[in-house]
Amino acid sequence: MTISTTLTEHVLNKLEGAKRTTGALAAASTAVKNEALRNMAAALWEQRAGIIAANAADVADAQAAGQLQARIDRLLLNETRILQMMEGLEQVAELADPVGEVLDKNELQNGLEITKLRVPMGVIAMIYESRPNVTVDATGLLIKTGNAIVLRGGREALRSNQALVAALRTGMQNAGLPIEAIQLIEMVDHASVDVLLEARGLVDLVIPRGGAGLIQRVVQNAKVPVIETGVGNCHVYVDKEADLAKAQPIVINAKTQRPSVCNAIETLLVHASVAANWLPQVARDLLARGVELRACAQSLAILKGANLAWQSGELLPATEEDWATEYLDFTLAVKVVGSLEEAMAHIAQYGSLHSEAIVTEDADAAETFLNGVDAAVVYHNASTRFTDGFEFGYGAEIGISTQKLHARGPMGLREMTSYKYVVRGEGQVRD
Amino acid sequence: MTISTTLTEHVLNKLEGAKRTTGALAAASTAVKNEALRNMAAALWEQRAGIIAANAADVADAQAAGQLQARIDRLLLNETRILQMMEGLEQVAELADPVGEVLDKNELQNGLEITKLRVPMGVIAMIYESRPNVTVDATGLLIKTGNAIVLRGGREALRSNQALVAALRTGMQNAGLPIEAIQLIEMVDHASVDVLLEARGLVDLVIPRGGAGLIQRVVQNAKVPVIETGVGNCHVYVDKEADLAKAQPIVINAKTQRPSVCNAIETLLVHASVAANWLPQVARDLLARGVELRACAQSLAILKGANLAWQSGELLPATEEDWATEYLDFTLAVKVVGSLEEAMAHIAQYGSLHSEAIVTEDADAAETFLNGVDAAVVYHNASTRFTDGFEFGYGAEIGISTQKLHARGPMGLREMTSYKYVVRGEGQVRD
Repeated sequence: MTISTTLTEHVLNKLEGAKRTTGALAAASTAVKNEALRNMAAALWEQRAGIIAANAADVADAQAAGQLQARIDRLLLNETRILQMMEGLEQVAELADPVGEVLDKNELQNGLEITKLRVPMGVIAMIYESRPNVTVDATGLLIKTGNAIVLRGGREALRSNQALVAALRTGMQNAGLPIEAIQLIEMVDHASVDVLLEARGLVDLVIPRGGAGLIQRVVQNAKVPVIETGVGNCHVYVDKEADLAKAQPIVINAKTQRPSVCNAIETLLVHASVAANWLPQVARDLLARGVELRACAQSLAILKGANLAWQSGELLPATEEDWATEYLDFTLAVKVVGSLEEAMAHIAQYGSLHSEAIVTEDADAAETFLNGVDAAVVYHNASTRFTDGFEFGYGAEIGISTQKLHARGPMGLREMTSYKYVVRGEGQVRD
Repeated sequence: MTISTTLTEHVLNKLEGAKRTTGALAAASTAVKNEALRNMAAALWEQRAGIIAANAADVADAQAAGQLQARIDRLLLNETRILQMMEGLEQVAELADPVGEVLDKNELQNGLEITKLRVPMGVIAMIYESRPNVTVDATGLLIKTGNAIVLRGGREALRSNQALVAALRTGMQNAGLPIEAIQLIEMVDHASVDVLLEARGLVDLVIPRGGAGLIQRVVQNAKVPVIETGVGNCHVYVDKEADLAKAQPIVINAKTQRPSVCNAIETLLVHASVAANWLPQVARDLLARGVELRACAQSLAILKGANLAWQSGELLPATEEDWATEYLDFTLAVKVVGSLEEAMAHIAQYGSLHSEAIVTEDADAAETFLNGVDAAVVYHNASTRFTDGFEFGYGAEIGISTQKLHARGPMGLREMTSYKYVVRGEGQVRD
């Protein structure tokens, strides 16, 4: 693909602008960074009329283009949502600043003193879709950790993001920090992502946030370091020794409390010895909440035989594709397994290393599952919905990593930092 | 490029073989892993005749192909080098096992107990060049940390690596660990690297070790997570307040003690106020050790005017390219700067985020440099040659990271691990 010079220059200018501020950001005190965050919140409120007007134009275009209501809802800003973003900034200002933390310190026999110190990453780029709140949330977390930020939001939210970034920059300026530390890429065709992903030396980390398509595009094309986030093909396994009084609410919660998020489950695995009696019970509850089932042959037979008034589409045979699908919707695949090992093998084959749960009263089975399942978060007798930076007590979250390099699971402030070694000597040389 | 099916299958079979063992490796006790390491050392000694014979065939081919002596020396194995590799394995067996370490533990208000636990990465691939000792050193570190390993060594060392891997696998087998955890890619054309770099889901981490060309190839083509290593365009800055009795040995050591390694310096930056008197002194010492200089206009004038018997090629004007070159040889670029800030700007422009040193008695200048220079290791009054896992007291080193994601500077055992969250509940669901 040929990328226009104008577009390349546009993106590189933004990146270089951000990079020039990394020294100042790394040197900024916690007090100044917190002041910037609070100033940003104040500026969002002061500039709310302009923000809401810009957003209204984005929303009008999305409606005219016939976008789905769910997407328009994600795009929408109003005073309530602005207040939520402001509250988020205030909360991040309250959190401890990880930058400067001494991670390790030791003196070598030759007298060299080595200090391992937490430092900002440098320039972090966020690539995301229609939610304009990411613009504010990510900026808060990254400025707090002394990073410069390059934002590449969705095309449909451009005017909203421009208005938000103007307010965020006002907040920076009022705290005496360089406004160039917050950059918004305003040429939003796909090629601007490609330029960003190849900008070695200008970007220390890229974090994609969005659907599987966006994340795959970033991971496949990036030549700069990436943290893969968010795709969650999560499972609950109900063991033969499960307390079914725990299993039922866990499955209902993990599937229905908020099905559109990555920590919701997509497949229920049930041990054969409890399937016949319990599957109809949980299916009744799921059905009442509007959940459609995609069942393996065995569970299909059990569910068809149960005294449930199935409507068209509510119970279908599962295909191979179902096991691999992140529905993000009121749909659940169901599979009967003959053993704990079969459940774990299914998860190893189809899981996305996100969140996996076992429900059992058998302590040995629980330990086998917790140790043997390769995922960011493994649960015993709890809903997968707890995989979340706020629930984990981090006070904030920039995303959920599904890779093993650098960060795994919910990422808070610490995960947005690196470290450096500072070595102090008196003329030492190596033998 | 079209990659043959045979080659793709060869590489994928190796990767899948490694992946199948990750559960067993992660569950292996420290005692069993240490036994495997000691068994590997024993097997290397028992099988030394075969290893040396295989290596002799590789060396003969390299000589016939007219390879440089330095390269043949890197390739050569003999009893002394086998003993060194064995000693390395024994040393790694003595080190603490990071796997299973509890990094954090807390109980939420709802009673959920969250434990953050150190776990192996999974499958780690090493891509390297002619040194066959990397085969043994990397395997020791990665088996100790419960990882499966896929080795892709240089074409010229294939028979040596095959013989070494056979011995390493004997060691695994004798400890009851799966031999498939150590895989050697035996089809060594470039395309096998490409297959490996695209094998998402089968490789958790790739570490390239070698020259800048190899590292660039890996970083540019990888679709799996990578840690960039090793390129070191390092500097010593001699400040106007430098104690020149410290500066001289530091510069000599950093340039000449072992110029072929990444932590040696490539450019000397000297403050203008000390350049006229001191540059001729240090140049005399460098010259006596066979170091050729590439000098900026100002330093060239000083050095030409000095009472030194320059031979052809020993003193040349520096070009723009010199500032960006990692010579890895007895060559040093020299630049006079007007201020600490100019030195830092030069390092920011040309440095490779590896190791950077300041020589000064001015504590403020030192702190400005240590805080403001973006590099894995920053030094005050010491040689850059200390950037090394053994020197830092890690007991081992798998490489030196020049990126900021996950690991920075010397990487030991801990850097070869990830973590997972284990959450224990009693039926908790999210509100």
